[in-house]
Amino acid sequence: MDPAAPKLEDVHAAAARIAPHAVRTPVLRSAALDAEVGAQLHFKCENLQRGGAFKFRGACNAVMSLDAATAARGVVTQSSGNHGTAIAIAARVRGIAAHVVVPRNAPAIKLAQIREQGARVILCEPTLAARDAACAAVQAETGAELVHPYDDVRVIAGQATAAYELVEQVGALDAVIAPVSGGGLLSGTAIAAHGLDAALRVFGGEPAQAADAHESLRRGILVTGMTPDTIADGLRAQLSARTFGILRAHAVEVLLASEDEIVYAMRLIWDRLKLVVEPSGAVALAALIAGHERVAGLRIGVILSGGNVDLDRLPWQEPRFRRALPPTAGGIA
Amino acid sequence: MDPAAPKLEDVHAAAARIAPHAVRTPVLRSAALDAEVGAQLHFKCENLQRGGAFKFRGACNAVMSLDAATAARGVVTQSSGNHGTAIAIAARVRGIAAHVVVPRNAPAIKLAQIREQGARVILCEPTLAARDAACAAVQAETGAELVHPYDDVRVIAGQATAAYELVEQVGALDAVIAPVSGGGLLSGTAIAAHGLDAALRVFGGEPAQAADAHESLRRGILVTGMTPDTIADGLRAQLSARTFGILRAHAVEVLLASEDEIVYAMRLIWDRLKLVVEPSGAVALAALIAGHERVAGLRIGVILSGGNVDLDRLPWQEPRFRRALPPTAGGIA
Repeated sequence: MDPAAPKLEDVHAAAARIAPHAVRTPVLRSAALDAEVGAQLHFKCENLQRGGAFKFRGACNAVMSLDAATAARGVVTQSSGNHGTAIAIAARVRGIAAHVVVPRNAPAIKLAQIREQGARVILCEPTLAARDAACAAVQAETGAELVHPYDDVRVIAGQATAAYELVEQVGALDAVIAPVSGGGLLSGTAIAAHGLDAALRVFGGEPAQAADAHESLRRGILVTGMTPDTIADGLRAQLSARTFGILRAHAVEVLLASEDEIVYAMRLIWDRLKLVVEPSGAVALAALIAGHERVAGLRIGVILSGGNVDLDRLPWQEPRFRRALPPTAGGIA
Repeated sequence: MDPAAPKLEDVHAAAARIAPHAVRTPVLRSAALDAEVGAQLHFKCENLQRGGAFKFRGACNAVMSLDAATAARGVVTQSSGNHGTAIAIAARVRGIAAHVVVPRNAPAIKLAQIREQGARVILCEPTLAARDAACAAVQAETGAELVHPYDDVRVIAGQATAAYELVEQVGALDAVIAPVSGGGLLSGTAIAAHGLDAALRVFGGEPAQAADAHESLRRGILVTGMTPDTIADGLRAQLSARTFGILRAHAVEVLLASEDEIVYAMRLIWDRLKLVVEPSGAVALAALIAGHERVAGLRIGVILSGGNVDLDRLPWQEPRFRRALPPTAGGIA
């Protein structure tokens, strides 16, 4: 039997639970980006979410749904990215302890972010086994509740609220697209989208150089052990059995984007939408540009997943990504 | 007698006139930026406006308020910046001709932006006299209506809609701040703010190295002929008799920001609010940081005026602006 998946009623409940704490992020349009894809795009700005990424939705839903006795023992997770910061913020808001297991080779800036929110950082070796062991040790020591970055029904229900809100904000859509890594956001997006409108098409955007979700869905089995090699550092995780099962059940189609296309889309978003997004946050648009003949003329919700990026190291300033872009045309013309 | 100033009813009318065409820009918050200033900040995101700056509000109001016979002869303006693009977009929307006089030394990218919107660009020598003469020649030739970048009641009423909307969106405020250059945005902001709430304090943010508004208000006379030298390239114009009169009548107080403070604030906005703003768009926040003891504890509306910036040349990458910033903390925590 497949692992449990959240239902639309869980998404409803998550939306109500996180409403006092999360940002109801705006939805932006751009005629220039519509023209780039040949479709009508509605950008859900999760880079403007608390913590700078959609991850706060899932983390907040998980932390706020704990009963008092469980919450009192704190929460633990493993993440070197936005989920770690999100758990730290959610735990601070609830007033409980957070323990975040981070591989030793994570950027110092990420550790600083997590600590800035009052969480305890536990360093470990950069292997999956070491991370699992460190989490288990924290659980044994403290009794803290594990909140996995994506393989968790509470987290998936929380991430689903982004698409849920988007449909509330803009009305009927033909399709929705979200980036895919471990699959928490994309599986939640599929559940919300199809709960509201069974005819909605659900797409994932994935780096061609980290294409385990694309490969798994194509082959109909969960493919693991691929080695991701992408500038989209938030998209290097792999599907779990749970998220794979949800994506397959919802007939999600994954569109791929090359590294050049990701950087191109990222710069377009900065230039035209005037938004700071990280490479992972630009992958959905990159995949739409790459696969534009699949989506021509559709009214599409696009989830811009996050905006946490090093402003001293922008990808288009690297020689390998120097590529012609249209001149800055001044925002939403 | 002072030149005419728009009234609140003109702002009402402008808001209705531009509503079908302009973006109702979102208002964002950031706990980190609140802490930086020691006040409660509500950021009105005019960088997300059509054309990437508030300028579309005034240009659109002017163009849409022309009677049919006048409109048929087209519009003319002089601007090397966001106003030129805004006029070009507004004229395109109305389906009339636009002529934009631009000094020869303006960046090629600005000319491309204006032409991309279908306007005719007329190059002239980079002096005020040459610009005026070129505008007059276009008027004589075509009968086009002049829409000055700021010394125009229709433009001021249009710019006023940003603060008007902001108060609608967030409710009562203690103060509002906008950047000041020629004074179109700031005088409109004062008219809207005091029309809605006579007790509202109205601040301007101005580069210390382009401080003609500060100096004019301090001395009680219109000071001209100062030489601006600031990275905030949108703030190098000077008040007119009209805008000076409005600012003085409304007891507007100008807070100054150094070049370092402007770049610091700009990066903070990118880092924490995840928004692309140009240096001019960061001056209001920079002035609040510099003058924080003047605004401690207040609930303040902050107009982020624009986001048109060269993504290949970011100020904090210039050696003269290398200055320590807090680590990226992940958005709106």
